[in-house]
Amino acid sequence: MLNKEQIAIYFQSLQDQICKALEEADGAGRFHQDLWQREAGGGGRTRIIQGKHIEKGGVNWSAVHGPMPEKIASALKLDGGEFFASGVSIVLHPQSPKVPIIHMNVRYFEMSNGIWWFGGGIDLTPHYIVEEDAKYFHHALKKVCDKHHSDYYPMFKKWADDYFFIKHRDETRGIGGIFFDRLSQNEDFSKEQRFEFVKDVGELFAPLYVHLLQKNKDLPFTEREKNWQLVRRGRYVEFNLVWDKGTKFGLDTNGRTESILMSLPPEVNWVYSHQVEEGSEEEKTQALLKKGVDWTA
Amino acid sequence: MLNKEQIAIYFQSLQDQICKALEEADGAGRFHQDLWQREAGGGGRTRIIQGKHIEKGGVNWSAVHGPMPEKIASALKLDGGEFFASGVSIVLHPQSPKVPIIHMNVRYFEMSNGIWWFGGGIDLTPHYIVEEDAKYFHHALKKVCDKHHSDYYPMFKKWADDYFFIKHRDETRGIGGIFFDRLSQNEDFSKEQRFEFVKDVGELFAPLYVHLLQKNKDLPFTEREKNWQLVRRGRYVEFNLVWDKGTKFGLDTNGRTESILMSLPPEVNWVYSHQVEEGSEEEKTQALLKKGVDWTA
Repeated sequence: MLNKEQIAIYFQSLQDQICKALEEADGAGRFHQDLWQREAGGGGRTRIIQGKHIEKGGVNWSAVHGPMPEKIASALKLDGGEFFASGVSIVLHPQSPKVPIIHMNVRYFEMSNGIWWFGGGIDLTPHYIVEEDAKYFHHALKKVCDKHHSDYYPMFKKWADDYFFIKHRDETRGIGGIFFDRLSQNEDFSKEQRFEFVKDVGELFAPLYVHLLQKNKDLPFTEREKNWQLVRRGRYVEFNLVWDKGTKFGLDTNGRTESILMSLPPEVNWVYSHQVEEGSEEEKTQALLKKGVDWTA
Repeated sequence: MLNKEQIAIYFQSLQDQICKALEEADGAGRFHQDLWQREAGGGGRTRIIQGKHIEKGGVNWSAVHGPMPEKIASALKLDGGEFFASGVSIVLHPQSPKVPIIHMNVRYFEMSNGIWWFGGGIDLTPHYIVEEDAKYFHHALKKVCDKHHSDYYPMFKKWADDYFFIKHRDETRGIGGIFFDRLSQNEDFSKEQRFEFVKDVGELFAPLYVHLLQKNKDLPFTEREKNWQLVRRGRYVEFNLVWDKGTKFGLDTNGRTESILMSLPPEVNWVYSHQVEEGSEEEKTQALLKKGVDWTA
């Protein structure tokens, strides 16, 4: 039977594999690693790249355990006990406004009462939405999902639309992707089958992003496009700090702040009441930042 | 008896007076005004300046009313009814890292059940803490407080230390100031007396900030100091989006997003695991970002 150590070790190898692929794709940047330990149990490897094409990227692995933090216990309506959590979290902010921001997470959670689940997802935040790339991205996610269950893609795509939503802007963070949580065993899926799905999602990440990076990294861009990127990065910060449950939870439960906030972009700009020009590319992108767009049609 | 209309009108005149003083002090920028209306009742005047010395500043006035939003009702454990709220909110981000960021708020809240209170405060976030300025700032606040009650300054200074605290960084946002809320009438204070105090706080703002601006605006600064300013602005964003109850509340209850988020700085930079150099000015400032520093000693 698959145990938590095996899962944590797999996630560690996934981190290695992704870092290697990203260094190759960037061509110049190298990951810098910070090893950290958690007082109450476990630790992690935070890896940060500041490259030629990836302006700031983090690929984090962690495996933590110990007495259940009170905030988790009360959120799950439990009386304490021990927990174990391991996963890989990634956010990449590219130099070029023509290359999208990407986020990936795969995680496993287990409690001493025997309850466990997997969670995760991949979502894309283009500064400028390019239809061809959006379709490529969603088709790739759908293909991986369909391999495991025909319900996965429609269910997890909707979940991403609902999750990566900036309520106070009434817009999605980007073009979504897939998001899933609490995938446990049931009549349809064994633990091994859930894990196989999570592995496929994790392993899709590098080729998917490398493709989008290679395709767009050398496109020319204007100062106006760069400024728009800084505004869109502001929205990314707003989502992560105001609405993202993982970020809030990490900050609330004394997680390692620098590892959690590696998701924040480098240079950002908040412009009061920024307006897009009628008929502009910015307006076209803005119009697509909504739930329910079918990119696989 | 002082009524809500009188208070709202006073706040409006306070906004006018402060905008005038800031335009004069900046010497180049002019406030741009957005009038807005709230669907459920009331509205506001959002004024933004992008000046020579004030890189981005907002001086907002609003007076809103209507059925109690559910979030307020449940927070106050009430069964609905009507509310009225009016106030002035200010955040100024200066161009120069040698000039501090400042925030001021004065507000009045009233419910149809007759319960009312005043709240507000002023706090300062220097990029570099200058002892002379910090003392000047706190002495000025203390003087205004002492005029009304000898308990005010120690009580409201501690309240500011506790409120403007970035828990996940274990540091205060800046050097604090005063913060107060739910100031209602009791055996010691009439409504008029509470209002007089709030007026004095509001009217202290312009001369206090203009002094700090004039004193520091023409000091030379280096690229390193500018970079530090962008890092400190990141902390300001983190506080406002993660911990500030007013911001969260506004975004949660469908407040006017652009007016609420005018508090966010223009250019910002998040650097992974930024470290201050030993013995540097940045380190000295960092060491003072803690609760309980007595600037009036």
